[in-house]
Amino acid sequence: MSESILEVSSFLYRYAELLDGEQFDAWTQLFDPQDCQYRVLSRENQELGLPLPIMGCFSHGMVCDRVAMLAKGVLTYRRDRLLRQVSNVQCHSVGDAGMSVRANLVVYQSSEEGVSSLYMVARYKGVLVRSGDGWLIRSMDVVVDSFGIDTMLAVPL
Amino acid sequence: MSESILEVSSFLYRYAELLDGEQFDAWTQLFDPQDCQYRVLSRENQELGLPLPIMGCFSHGMVCDRVAMLAKGVLTYRRDRLLRQVSNVQCHSVGDAGMSVRANLVVYQSSEEGVSSLYMVARYKGVLVRSGDGWLIRSMDVVVDSFGIDTMLAVPL
Amino acid sequence: MSESILEVSSFLYRYAELLDGEQFDAWTQLFDPQDCQYRVLSRENQELGLPLPIMGCFSHGMVCDRVAMLAKGVLTYRRDRLLRQVSNVQCHSVGDAGMSVRANLVVYQSSEEGVSSLYMVARYKGVLVRSGDGWLIRSMDVVVDSFGIDTMLAVPL
Repeated sequence: MSESILEVSSFLYRYAELLDGEQFDAWTQLFDPQDCQYRVLSRENQELGLPLPIMGCFSHGMVCDRVAMLAKGVLTYRRDRLLRQVSNVQCHSVGDAGMSVRANLVVYQSSEEGVSSLYMVARYKGVLVRSGDGWLIRSMDVVVDSFGIDTMLAVPL
Repeated sequence: MSESILEVSSFLYRYAELLDGEQFDAWTQLFDPQDCQYRVLSRENQELGLPLPIMGCFSHGMVCDRVAMLAKGVLTYRRDRLLRQVSNVQCHSVGDAGMSVRANLVVYQSSEEGVSSLYMVARYKGVLVRSGDGWLIRSMDVVVDSFGIDTMLAVPL
Repeated sequence: MSESILEVSSFLYRYAELLDGEQFDAWTQLFDPQDCQYRVLSRENQELGLPLPIMGCFSHGMVCDRVAMLAKGVLTYRRDRLLRQVSNVQCHSVGDAGMSVRANLVVYQSSEEGVSSLYMVARYKGVLVRSGDGWLIRSMDVVVDSFGIDTMLAVPL
């Protein structure tokens, strides 16, 4: 168990580091190419039992496609840099080789002038599966408390 | 030692998750029913050597009572949701079966409109005791840097 | 490996706790007295390949000297208290007895009136070396996203 929580924490920190560094190609490779899902949901909708995600990718192709679109369409003019703080990592085994994961996410943005501010508060709820020595994402839900942010979907969370 | 720090971290993340989810009844069960103390103290007072807590519960009954009062009196109109980020968890053994614990706490609030902001900055200083496979809280002091917040005591920290 | 990441995390939490508590003398003792470097760099400069640090100490004497200056010159009138949240700790072995370390840092300040706000967002990039049972800092770079803060260098990060 202690190995697992450390491996899962390390996986999520790598996930955050790749996004912070805008290494989106490497980020997509954290998802299981055979079967994966990535969704951004508002906490409000989730609590009301409304299943519609703000954004959803239901295959590896969709994950890659969305990121490619972002890289071309948005990040050409976006200059703010993000720092993703992942904390409160919890996990427990599910099924044969799966691991259910929960964590908190707080994202800060810093402008070109070096002024930082709170950007986003969210929770990760995911399932990882074993792949060789490491893990891959079977599903990742990002449940956002901060759904009032216009530019929220300009970057993966 | 490595097992302990992971268990203690996991315990605090669970503590935070229960409060975030407003599962106050389950939260009170993290305290030792035989002997426990829960206090919120301002950093200012603590540094001046003034022992008076902003709020103090000196038995399990008081912990439960206070939470029941909150649930009835305050949370009926409070709609903001909180996310508690617990970090920098440190611990060391004390006595026969006790564990002294320190951690940092940053709380974010998100309004019904999905706008998030910093709510509270504090430090946990507690003592946990063994109970079967798990831990229970013997004492928990929450030392708040943010004592200027009117609504601070509307929810347990 | 699992021991290492826990030891390194614990080391960084201690580092943060000493700075939060303004125990600067104990903080300087975390550095290798024989050979160490401490630098604060802006992310902007680092990304442009500009090597000049905002602040740099290239020996243990310089680390101590700078801190002594701070304690005398600045902290006499500074009354804000800081809380350093260290997260996303990652590490891997380098060379014979070294450990490369990365982590995220978010600092909050709280005024005398108990009002808290975001102060600083940064990343740690360091190398630790074995020393008996523990670790010492061979090099520590603090790469700041928030370089627009006038008072940033009033305290070590």
